[in-house]
Amino acid sequence: MGNTFGQLFRVTTFGESHGGGVGVVIDGCPPRLEISAAEIQQELDRRRPGQSKITTPRKEADTCEILSGVFEGKTLGTPIAILVRNKDTRPQDYDEMAQKYRPSHADATYDAKYGIRNWQGGGRSSARETIGRVAAGAIAKKILFAVAGIEIIGYVKRIKDLEGVIDPNTVTTAQVESNIVRCPDAECAERMIEHIEQIGRQGDSIGGVVECVARNVPKGLGEPVFDKLEADIAKGVMSLPASKGFEIGSGFAGTLLTGSKHNDEFYTDERGEVRTLTNRSGGIQGGISNGENIILRVAFKPTATIRKEQRTVTREGEDTLLAAKGRHDPCVLPRAVPMVEAMVALVLCDHLLRHQGQCKVLTN
Amino acid sequence: MGNTFGQLFRVTTFGESHGGGVGVVIDGCPPRLEISAAEIQQELDRRRPGQSKITTPRKEADTCEILSGVFEGKTLGTPIAILVRNKDTRPQDYDEMAQKYRPSHADATYDAKYGIRNWQGGGRSSARETIGRVAAGAIAKKILFAVAGIEIIGYVKRIKDLEGVIDPNTVTTAQVESNIVRCPDAECAERMIEHIEQIGRQGDSIGGVVECVARNVPKGLGEPVFDKLEADIAKGVMSLPASKGFEIGSGFAGTLLTGSKHNDEFYTDERGEVRTLTNRSGGIQGGISNGENIILRVAFKPTATIRKEQRTVTREGEDTLLAAKGRHDPCVLPRAVPMVEAMVALVLCDHLLRHQGQCKVLTN
Amino acid sequence: MGNTFGQLFRVTTFGESHGGGVGVVIDGCPPRLEISAAEIQQELDRRRPGQSKITTPRKEADTCEILSGVFEGKTLGTPIAILVRNKDTRPQDYDEMAQKYRPSHADATYDAKYGIRNWQGGGRSSARETIGRVAAGAIAKKILFAVAGIEIIGYVKRIKDLEGVIDPNTVTTAQVESNIVRCPDAECAERMIEHIEQIGRQGDSIGGVVECVARNVPKGLGEPVFDKLEADIAKGVMSLPASKGFEIGSGFAGTLLTGSKHNDEFYTDERGEVRTLTNRSGGIQGGISNGENIILRVAFKPTATIRKEQRTVTREGEDTLLAAKGRHDPCVLPRAVPMVEAMVALVLCDHLLRHQGQCKVLTN
Amino acid sequence: MGNTFGQLFRVTTFGESHGGGVGVVIDGCPPRLEISAAEIQQELDRRRPGQSKITTPRKEADTCEILSGVFEGKTLGTPIAILVRNKDTRPQDYDEMAQKYRPSHADATYDAKYGIRNWQGGGRSSARETIGRVAAGAIAKKILFAVAGIEIIGYVKRIKDLEGVIDPNTVTTAQVESNIVRCPDAECAERMIEHIEQIGRQGDSIGGVVECVARNVPKGLGEPVFDKLEADIAKGVMSLPASKGFEIGSGFAGTLLTGSKHNDEFYTDERGEVRTLTNRSGGIQGGISNGENIILRVAFKPTATIRKEQRTVTREGEDTLLAAKGRHDPCVLPRAVPMVEAMVALVLCDHLLRHQGQCKVLTN
Repeated sequence: MGNTFGQLFRVTTFGESHGGGVGVVIDGCPPRLEISAAEIQQELDRRRPGQSKITTPRKEADTCEILSGVFEGKTLGTPIAILVRNKDTRPQDYDEMAQKYRPSHADATYDAKYGIRNWQGGGRSSARETIGRVAAGAIAKKILFAVAGIEIIGYVKRIKDLEGVIDPNTVTTAQVESNIVRCPDAECAERMIEHIEQIGRQGDSIGGVVECVARNVPKGLGEPVFDKLEADIAKGVMSLPASKGFEIGSGFAGTLLTGSKHNDEFYTDERGEVRTLTNRSGGIQGGISNGENIILRVAFKPTATIRKEQRTVTREGEDTLLAAKGRHDPCVLPRAVPMVEAMVALVLCDHLLRHQGQCKVLTN
Repeated sequence: MGNTFGQLFRVTTFGESHGGGVGVVIDGCPPRLEISAAEIQQELDRRRPGQSKITTPRKEADTCEILSGVFEGKTLGTPIAILVRNKDTRPQDYDEMAQKYRPSHADATYDAKYGIRNWQGGGRSSARETIGRVAAGAIAKKILFAVAGIEIIGYVKRIKDLEGVIDPNTVTTAQVESNIVRCPDAECAERMIEHIEQIGRQGDSIGGVVECVARNVPKGLGEPVFDKLEADIAKGVMSLPASKGFEIGSGFAGTLLTGSKHNDEFYTDERGEVRTLTNRSGGIQGGISNGENIILRVAFKPTATIRKEQRTVTREGEDTLLAAKGRHDPCVLPRAVPMVEAMVALVLCDHLLRHQGQCKVLTN
Repeated sequence: MGNTFGQLFRVTTFGESHGGGVGVVIDGCPPRLEISAAEIQQELDRRRPGQSKITTPRKEADTCEILSGVFEGKTLGTPIAILVRNKDTRPQDYDEMAQKYRPSHADATYDAKYGIRNWQGGGRSSARETIGRVAAGAIAKKILFAVAGIEIIGYVKRIKDLEGVIDPNTVTTAQVESNIVRCPDAECAERMIEHIEQIGRQGDSIGGVVECVARNVPKGLGEPVFDKLEADIAKGVMSLPASKGFEIGSGFAGTLLTGSKHNDEFYTDERGEVRTLTNRSGGIQGGISNGENIILRVAFKPTATIRKEQRTVTREGEDTLLAAKGRHDPCVLPRAVPMVEAMVALVLCDHLLRHQGQCKVLTN
Repeated sequence: MGNTFGQLFRVTTFGESHGGGVGVVIDGCPPRLEISAAEIQQELDRRRPGQSKITTPRKEADTCEILSGVFEGKTLGTPIAILVRNKDTRPQDYDEMAQKYRPSHADATYDAKYGIRNWQGGGRSSARETIGRVAAGAIAKKILFAVAGIEIIGYVKRIKDLEGVIDPNTVTTAQVESNIVRCPDAECAERMIEHIEQIGRQGDSIGGVVECVARNVPKGLGEPVFDKLEADIAKGVMSLPASKGFEIGSGFAGTLLTGSKHNDEFYTDERGEVRTLTNRSGGIQGGISNGENIILRVAFKPTATIRKEQRTVTREGEDTLLAAKGRHDPCVLPRAVPMVEAMVALVLCDHLLRHQGQCKVLTN
């Protein structure tokens, strides 16, 4: 109970890493939107394992099928169900992990909560679960662009202590996709890739930070006091596997400034729009978008499943050692980029629909 | 639309800073719990303005009244409504701000979204709104302790660059309340107080970080994949006024470690419980509590409303200057401590009720 | 947990019949709507006890106070909290009922569920709880009329076997309010009043049927497949105290016709609108409004609390007899009319906001 | 937006009558419940078209596949997705109906709401949508029986004016399934079948009433004031295709009695349980189950799609005539029985989980 996200653009995901498949049901999609499986596939391919030398070598095509909600290429306004079949499973890789808990993984807590667990490949706690999110995010992105020209661009900002220099106001998707680590600072990307390969060879893993920008967001999205825009985005990205931190605008660093240095002063631009001279607010004030770019960052810990030997216990509580088998990403960051974009898109799309409903109704 | 929080322990707040009052309706409180207005008042007094020389000098008693849901000192299982009347208002302090937007405040976005705004003291975006949260949090805390012995302790970890040395595993409420800045590191607290006073005299403001620990949380709370425990906590605290960042366990700093250094290895303790040697996970793995202490941090920006003069615009978009009148906190951190505790308590209480329902039912 | 109704126009009620008061928080009201306490009071006065010789002689002014969400006579888009203080309580009337369960009342089930009960006057199960619904309904009605010219008119269709002849397509509020039983068939109303008085003198009670029409409802409201318009209306009115049945359009009687007799054939009217020749569908087809008048009926059982002596048991399970004291309505129907109107208004208002959000967004 | 039902046992259905398939995602199922596709199939077979000479001759095997949430024959506590592929479609039967609205069907309202419609076989408004409900209901039934011994039995009570004599307190599933019309009064069933066949030959249709009983329901289920047990059941069954009315216990007929005749007097039975002498309340008082059998009735109108010629209009608003092609049920009642059972099971299961969570938590 907790597999549904959103109020008006409502997404329910399902599926374990091994079993029939994974997918999503999207309820509340506006009707008459043109959408194709190919467009969704494009986003799924960015999330797909085996896409490059720095991701897991598991080969999963992750081909999606639209089961409902689309007719003659257009959305019906009815639920859109999307299914991706599971393939290329090697349950034997997980034999040992059926008995031994992976440190910092969800194996032990799933057992504690449910008293049962699909031990093949992480089950529901596998990153494979995010396929449904990314598929739904592809549709959300399309709606956001069609309705308001909103574009959402995520990228790897930092791998361990290697930090790229990137301007969120001008970065393009082409720049992000120009290298396999998805860091638009080409020189830094080189070093990141090299470092990930080296760590992978050691059987270890590393983490980092994804930054994401949403541009052309209209003023007025967000529903105080609990469903503030940054609160819902925080929930969305903190529900992604391996995320450990979130910040918006100036974030933690902003706490080092005084108010007079931190505040975003207002001015009126040439078109008569009220704008801010700086953007330490990250595009949101009082929980409501202010028309500036929304800029946020998400911290992802190093992958928990590693080949290095570690202390752990068995399901029966016996002390033991585990050196994980299987084919795991030494660094989730490149594949986390489309996941972060998806969650930001889901939140913005939900709030766009909520806002249009509540506040425009009297003047329509 | 966004003033309700929680699924089974469901809190709805209402009220602007000026007007009849502020309050909360709590739905889903277990019946037969002993509760008194005095217990709730105790938490409200920690949030209250005018409580010390480093908070706003506004004198608001914030006396609460329980309107429903309690009978002969015990909860009925019906909605508990709590009301705090507004007092000591000086709308004349806000005359100028009726026309001029405060930089980095919600004035402009509320106008953009709703086309109307109670300009007296921040209206709904005032921190006064959190009274309802803190009142509900007092009840949530009591339930958590009664059911499972859970205790939640927040404190000021950092003011600007002044960081206290505090052990979350042993810190006590008495230590937190032993000084007016609510930093249990007494020596650091002195310097924090001094710095806040100095900044206040300059008409400026500062921010910082609140850390919060939840102890004795049973294994199994949290509902993947969207309602992961840390995701709901993130949403809760990121919906507080002035919060800009959230992290759980190792947080952003954890991204600098390799997996082999970051993972929390398992062992079995003397009572046969599966435990972790370290706690970089912050008490949550895969979105589910693992029985270790839940440890989190929230970044609060410097107060937006300051007496220093700043550039801004009027409602009509004219460029102008504003030096805010009124009586504002130079630093929200001491009063943010009970707010963070309240949000953590609301989330844990909700998940405790959700978990008991879903997973115990077959064995009851 | 179950005191909130609606998705976008979301109403949370609170309060027991004895205690601080009863009320409601309305979240999601569009901003900039003119509203006054007097307008809400007008609807509350229609629900008020002691309004005529055929209702309970309890004198409760039920004066409402708007606590939040309205500023200078207009809604802010923030939660509107409305409070009605409890008055004129005679808990001594309930001394006996603290020990003895009233047959067909909620006394016993509340005890079974919660293990505690405010036995003074029915507590949360008292019809007094509907004050919050009627107050919220007053605002919903105003929105519906302002946005789309929708009007909602309920009336007493039948008392026991006395059935009025009323045309839902032309009936007016003035006709409904022209007599104290709220049956717009004046001649039948006379007989109804006489019968209620006679039953009341016998210490007994009677029930009947309220019919309600919503006119000028635009096509397109309702969200299949679960939140069909009639499904949400059914839930709304079946949550009213004493309701035992619901039907829409032809209802139970429609099951006696064949399809060829029952179907509403289509035609195009002079303005080019697709209309139906008959209206056995009751204004809703496939869960979505079709632009015809929405017509529904609700069955209310005879009041459970009567002065006639009946068999019952004590809280301890001892067999005993009870002749209820206190001042009870011999027939709830006249006061149920504004309650039914309120629930229909809440549902329509919620769906109006939901529909504007989902389907207009692409063309805005 | 409206395709999810339930709070803790939460069901989301998807799919149109033509397209990839129909199905359901069930979130909140307790873990470690044994369940197989065969058990679900058994319920689907009762809903299936072509099961007898009085249902539509469409041959749809409706074979279900469990995509997720079950591992080695047991539920995981994660979402259970179930898919039924669409087969045997004859879109050519619908060519005419792509242009002409079927009277009293959802064709016109879907077009009005969404501006687009899958005209092949009713699309989302097809009764085929209920496959997901019945599949989820099969699981809910199993939980209810496993946890509390609850059994739910529906049956055809009336076809047009042919009414069976059936005792809800003793009726068995075997009796219901002993004939194709699902009326456990064997003699009346004969006449019903004959009448349905005759009506079918005329190209016309008829309706009737399904009655349903839930036995062994524990005291205490239901969440006043809005989520009363009968209110949620009412919503559930009124969201079924073709339903026009709902009543609980004495229902509409109960309005003809006085209170002293209608009230259910209490007594204490030999085991010390508080019981009622009669059951006009239908097992629910004040919105909460009282331990007596829950008894309810649902009115279903005659099938809208008939072969007899009727007046209608085209999508462009031209007056025309339509004699529907395709293979339609002359009477939906026999197939509606498992649908009503499913909705009652979904509501009871949801409330069982909600109740265990809220009220047992303090004493666990």
